[in-house]
Amino acid sequence: MPTPSLLILPGDGIGPEVMAEVRRIIDWYGAKRGLVFDVTEDLVGGCAYDAHGTPLTDATMAKAQEVDAVLLGAVGGPKYDDLDFSVKPERGLLRLRKEMDLYANLRPAQCFDALADFSSLKREVVAGLDILILRELTSGIYFGEPRGIIREGNERVGINTQRYTESEIARIARSAFELARKRSNKVCSMEKANVMESGILWRQVVTEIHQAEYPDVELSHMYADAGAMQLSRWPKQFDVIVTDNLFGDLLSDLAAMLTGSLGMLPSASLGAPMANGRPKALYEPVHGSAPDIAGQEKANPIACILSFAMALRYSFDKGDEAERLEKAVEAVLAKGYRTPDLMAAEGGTQVTTKGMGDAILAAL
Amino acid sequence: MPTPSLLILPGDGIGPEVMAEVRRIIDWYGAKRGLVFDVTEDLVGGCAYDAHGTPLTDATMAKAQEVDAVLLGAVGGPKYDDLDFSVKPERGLLRLRKEMDLYANLRPAQCFDALADFSSLKREVVAGLDILILRELTSGIYFGEPRGIIREGNERVGINTQRYTESEIARIARSAFELARKRSNKVCSMEKANVMESGILWRQVVTEIHQAEYPDVELSHMYADAGAMQLSRWPKQFDVIVTDNLFGDLLSDLAAMLTGSLGMLPSASLGAPMANGRPKALYEPVHGSAPDIAGQEKANPIACILSFAMALRYSFDKGDEAERLEKAVEAVLAKGYRTPDLMAAEGGTQVTTKGMGDAILAAL
Ligand SMILES: CC(C)[C@H](C(=O)O)[C@@H](O)C(=O)O
Ligand SMILES: CC(C)[C@H](C(=O)O)[C@@H](O)C(=O)O
Repeated sequence: MPTPSLLILPGDGIGPEVMAEVRRIIDWYGAKRGLVFDVTEDLVGGCAYDAHGTPLTDATMAKAQEVDAVLLGAVGGPKYDDLDFSVKPERGLLRLRKEMDLYANLRPAQCFDALADFSSLKREVVAGLDILILRELTSGIYFGEPRGIIREGNERVGINTQRYTESEIARIARSAFELARKRSNKVCSMEKANVMESGILWRQVVTEIHQAEYPDVELSHMYADAGAMQLSRWPKQFDVIVTDNLFGDLLSDLAAMLTGSLGMLPSASLGAPMANGRPKALYEPVHGSAPDIAGQEKANPIACILSFAMALRYSFDKGDEAERLEKAVEAVLAKGYRTPDLMAAEGGTQVTTKGMGDAILAAL
Repeated sequence: MPTPSLLILPGDGIGPEVMAEVRRIIDWYGAKRGLVFDVTEDLVGGCAYDAHGTPLTDATMAKAQEVDAVLLGAVGGPKYDDLDFSVKPERGLLRLRKEMDLYANLRPAQCFDALADFSSLKREVVAGLDILILRELTSGIYFGEPRGIIREGNERVGINTQRYTESEIARIARSAFELARKRSNKVCSMEKANVMESGILWRQVVTEIHQAEYPDVELSHMYADAGAMQLSRWPKQFDVIVTDNLFGDLLSDLAAMLTGSLGMLPSASLGAPMANGRPKALYEPVHGSAPDIAGQEKANPIACILSFAMALRYSFDKGDEAERLEKAVEAVLAKGYRTPDLMAAEGGTQVTTKGMGDAILAAL
């Protein structure tokens, strides 16, 4: 087996800081657990635009296609607000998702016990919460054509197209049912079939795949607006939620915020298996680039570190090593180590980004 | 001045029950306050389909165009789940919105003090909350063409189109700024300008209208996913939120649920002024048809009653009479009267739908 390869794209804002801690964790796995990775680092987002005039060069794109997994920090910042749409930092991330065909975006929404009081929700509503939002990531209104701003008479008109094919829906539905079987065997599919034809097709195809291939899994359907309400009312009613790109964007962020553990949440974006059997994969924290605190060693590196844990699990079949890392994070939290975002009234030991990395390494 | 006219469309599920209480309130205003309305009742939604094979007849549509205001209960139910898209109960409601051109959907999210503990959010996060979501209601992906389920090769493809013209955005932006001036003078506009060109145009036009016509109002912009997070984290940071039809659907329902007062929340959908100066208008509760409790006198009529209060304010320029009704509702809640949905651990006097109507009439 050749040395597994990783492409690291720290990106903008707090991306580089939190990724620096991930690199130390990766080094630890090489030195102590014999898990050596061939790591390359490159640019994405605003920093790539600054260097090359594009948020993702073709060379970086090609590299991403070759490696076993990509780890990404975060992209974007106010500095790039006025850039043309086609070269905005986000386009780099969207190009990676699209060209690697990373259709399955796994966004676990978990509430860390030590942090339950950070939630704006009552403790009993979120404590122990552990659900998974599965978001379709390569189609829908994010990528549909026609799109753009056109002129009609003396008016501008903004256009985007939501477009889902049967096979796009079928493959994300299969991912949802597979994931559910390893969890509590329950899938809730969300769309607006009462208003949108693309939602009708979504509901039909999910139902067909369910009946033909996964009748053992419990399936329910919910309109996405009701879904937003139910997530905020009693999120524990869910196990796996499967939904489209746009609804998934809102609902997964909502679910993440509800846990009170936003700075803690990782994500995985998976595609089809490559020749070596591993899925195409990109791992990134749910949080953004937080330009307001960038460069100050205030950022919480845990979401990015746990994204690497997801890589261990989904790309490298090292579920036990992933768990080791997750346990180390829990232990450190239980001991009261807190980056500034996690400092609550009742205290704890405030640490820097690097200090949190130190603590996790010590716990490993 | 001719007698003001009302078209009442109770609809499906709990619609008829809650509307029966509104009719008693309307009668009270006629008898005691000299506010006589010319009331017609008609069908919309599933019951219209049962009677006429369509969720809204042309005759009812024509009547809605003529009256001073429409009051609607709720539409839909599992009985109609398998109907063809074109005759689903929701199509009746959507046709009313579209043909009356009710582009401005006002959804106040208010937390009633007596009910703050019903929220899944901590009391301090929601107590005293009073924000307004202004949702564009006649365009966007709800109505854009092309749409449908087509066949491509041997696959089905579901298509919907998000389409916003400059003037559609400009008029809802103006509504937002006008409303904000009567409140705390703050507007937050939400879209996904980082991903969708229609969102870019939205942001541009809102900014242009702001600079040219409402520079005194404080304007901010937020991506809709961040908006969902911020609404659930600290909703009091907002005053007026303006957003498109689809984001507005999710975000207004989310905001409503967060208050803990879902069964209490009214909405107004307003269009351009008619010849008599009154805006085209439809008023409806935010809650749905709740088929599971329909016909059992368990439904909470307050959202529908407060929708009539909004009609008094926005269609009939009777802000003082609207306030009288709102105060009566608050008084009844303070006295502990509760429909089953409002029964909390600490008790209160449980009443039926009609019992709640009685109590409010007594308080008036
Ligand atoms: C940065 C942005 C393009 C992205 C999205 O909208 O998908 C982000 O919000 C996310 O959820 O990963
Ligand atoms: C019933 C349905 C068509 C409607 C919508 O999606 O607009 C409802 O959810 C609403 O918000 O009024």
